[in-house]
Amino acid sequence: MNLVYEPKKIIDVSKSQATFKRALNCIPAGIYGHLGPSEGCMVPVSSYPLYMDHAQGAYIWDIDGNRIIDYMCGYGPNYLGYNDPDVDAAAAAQRKKGDCTTLISDITVEFAEEVCSTINMADWAFFAKNGNDVTQFAMMIARAYTGRKKMVLTKGWYHGVSPWTQKLGYSGIVEEDVCNNLYIEWNHPEQFEALCKQYDGQIAGFISQPYQHGNFCDNELPAPGYWQKIREICDKYGVVLIIDDVRAGFRIDIKGSDYHYGIKSDLSCFCKAIANGYNVSVLCGNKKLLNATSDVAYTGSYWLSAVPFAAGIATLRKAKALNATEENAKKGKKLTDGLKEIAKDNGFDLRVTGEPGMFYLRLANDLPSRVIHQDWVCECVKRGVFFTSHHNHFINYALSDEDIQYTWEVADEAYKVVRERYPQAEFIK
Amino acid sequence: MNLVYEPKKIIDVSKSQATFKRALNCIPAGIYGHLGPSEGCMVPVSSYPLYMDHAQGAYIWDIDGNRIIDYMCGYGPNYLGYNDPDVDAAAAAQRKKGDCTTLISDITVEFAEEVCSTINMADWAFFAKNGNDVTQFAMMIARAYTGRKKMVLTKGWYHGVSPWTQKLGYSGIVEEDVCNNLYIEWNHPEQFEALCKQYDGQIAGFISQPYQHGNFCDNELPAPGYWQKIREICDKYGVVLIIDDVRAGFRIDIKGSDYHYGIKSDLSCFCKAIANGYNVSVLCGNKKLLNATSDVAYTGSYWLSAVPFAAGIATLRKAKALNATEENAKKGKKLTDGLKEIAKDNGFDLRVTGEPGMFYLRLANDLPSRVIHQDWVCECVKRGVFFTSHHNHFINYALSDEDIQYTWEVADEAYKVVRERYPQAEFIK
Repeated sequence: MNLVYEPKKIIDVSKSQATFKRALNCIPAGIYGHLGPSEGCMVPVSSYPLYMDHAQGAYIWDIDGNRIIDYMCGYGPNYLGYNDPDVDAAAAAQRKKGDCTTLISDITVEFAEEVCSTINMADWAFFAKNGNDVTQFAMMIARAYTGRKKMVLTKGWYHGVSPWTQKLGYSGIVEEDVCNNLYIEWNHPEQFEALCKQYDGQIAGFISQPYQHGNFCDNELPAPGYWQKIREICDKYGVVLIIDDVRAGFRIDIKGSDYHYGIKSDLSCFCKAIANGYNVSVLCGNKKLLNATSDVAYTGSYWLSAVPFAAGIATLRKAKALNATEENAKKGKKLTDGLKEIAKDNGFDLRVTGEPGMFYLRLANDLPSRVIHQDWVCECVKRGVFFTSHHNHFINYALSDEDIQYTWEVADEAYKVVRERYPQAEFIK
Repeated sequence: MNLVYEPKKIIDVSKSQATFKRALNCIPAGIYGHLGPSEGCMVPVSSYPLYMDHAQGAYIWDIDGNRIIDYMCGYGPNYLGYNDPDVDAAAAAQRKKGDCTTLISDITVEFAEEVCSTINMADWAFFAKNGNDVTQFAMMIARAYTGRKKMVLTKGWYHGVSPWTQKLGYSGIVEEDVCNNLYIEWNHPEQFEALCKQYDGQIAGFISQPYQHGNFCDNELPAPGYWQKIREICDKYGVVLIIDDVRAGFRIDIKGSDYHYGIKSDLSCFCKAIANGYNVSVLCGNKKLLNATSDVAYTGSYWLSAVPFAAGIATLRKAKALNATEENAKKGKKLTDGLKEIAKDNGFDLRVTGEPGMFYLRLANDLPSRVIHQDWVCECVKRGVFFTSHHNHFINYALSDEDIQYTWEVADEAYKVVRERYPQAEFIK
């Protein structure tokens, strides 16, 4: 690729560093979970911006005043662009009326109707607050509906932080939390069928992301016919089919990722993109599960807050009008095609996997420690382009061609830096 | 009590009824959980307002245009009054900057510092979204810290909807969910000590509300010395002491309900009132648990959203400036003293239990079905005063003396109505 550009400025992050030190005195790990500096992305804290001052569209300005092009989108919620004016206006109008009140707003019903007319498989919608709320609820509904205990998960799964979705050996997890789980490998429906035979009449549900978008590994799409086979096995053995669309929802198809891959799930879990960052998650379900769903005791203090519902309605309507999901995928394809070419120009073999709206990056000719890719990511971040090392990325609608061009320039400069840093490394072979 | 008033108008709720019918087509149970019309309060759907148009201060206006004095406060979150101008202004200012972004706002640290300087036991603060998120996390931290499995709960407990907090026999719950739980009766520390002896080295945590504020029964305060004894037993047997202050937090003492009752918990769970309805929950902890807390994998999509943090800071500062917790308790005392007197004037024996800021009502001379109290509550609601039958209530700072006076008039009229309806009932004896 023919890139002509001025060298980029290395950002100063001293205010972020100082604030992080303050945080360590009053917050466990300073910043915890997937937003923390060490989670998944292997970020060297000392050179990263950690705190936002403000955000707009595709950008975050950190507290040191640096503009950052953000390819993590809040780990998913930023779909139309930060502070989308239409979404924010709808939310502000509802805020003036009321949010978290004893009588719920009738906008709740309007949002349920909007969700059911958007998501192909949805006969009904149930609102909660976290992705985790709805994946856990889906598991409980599968048990309530079938009267069975066991759940089948696919290796590399992530369905939130409830104890039943974690692993034995993880801190705070006991055997009883996970003893009813069974596991298969991704794209191996025959393993699922074997379990259904072995545990006939004991398996309540099959839960999976629509494609394998795990960390620290190339992401894998479903093989042709995979989901059809899973659907068939679920029907044959009376197993509830649950799609965890928390991360991929609205990133592949606005009608649901199950629809995109040609099937109808029984339950689908949404969160993140559905309200452009306003705090709401949604479980959508098939009519046959309605009674079982109503029977399970499940509620939360803020689950029927009205403001996120107004934001959700505005998000879905605007996304449909703009074809935001398709447009984001096109932007992702354009960006990553360019990145691969730039990598190649510099002697690197960059692999791009997953759906284009939430691409995953890996350097094929890295050292075993993966340090070259991590260093490249770090050099990009230090120049104002926020990637992470071993987690998928996200595209938002506000990302412009100019942003992509800028990203390419930064990527090129970063590859040149790491190439000099590792003169003996395998990539030069 | 000498009350002179005009008969109150019976509110029309036909728009609520029509909207509820629409909801039944797209939402499980129409309105689910504790906000649903049948939960706890035994509300006859046909005569109740169900949907809010807007809210302000101590009032909700339903979609039929009726003004309702709200004694449920969104089941807890309304603390300073709906749409408090100072809280809303702080939240709106943060909203313009950014909310749910890849880099978190430095306001996160400011909120943690504010929480730690407010809550007596808090060395650190961890933010999540539901009360349930933090009660479940507290359980996991207790297990991580002690390397033990068992949890002790007090009968009548409610700690959210996670499977481990529910009961075997409830829909969707399996034996493995609850098999590590042990139970004691409220105000019986000797039962706790007996369990500690019986299961020496196996009990990870003791979790309890600061006083027993369950549904369908008189609420019970801790007996003198109760919490001191529990603290002593926890220390003796190495058990983590967890206060579930989700409902009672900021309703008894702004420094924490454990502080009010004279002890220091190891972990305290907050939600609801802490940000006047903005969606955030907080786990506060003792320094000794910091490493164990950091080790547990626990995160959520919206947990570090900045807008509720701005609201939380504004809520705590304003509440301290106004002495809101104490003032709300005074309002609750005044209101319920009057209600008892009015009940007595009409031949009823109304029992008021729990802390005055979140009082519980029961009619001592009711029929065994409790129908007289339920009918009285219904007659109050139909006249624009929202009580529930068998759940504690909440007071907010915006509630005025005029509102209390109006409530008394409605209560009196409602007692007269039900007295005529049950001429043979026990209360006339």
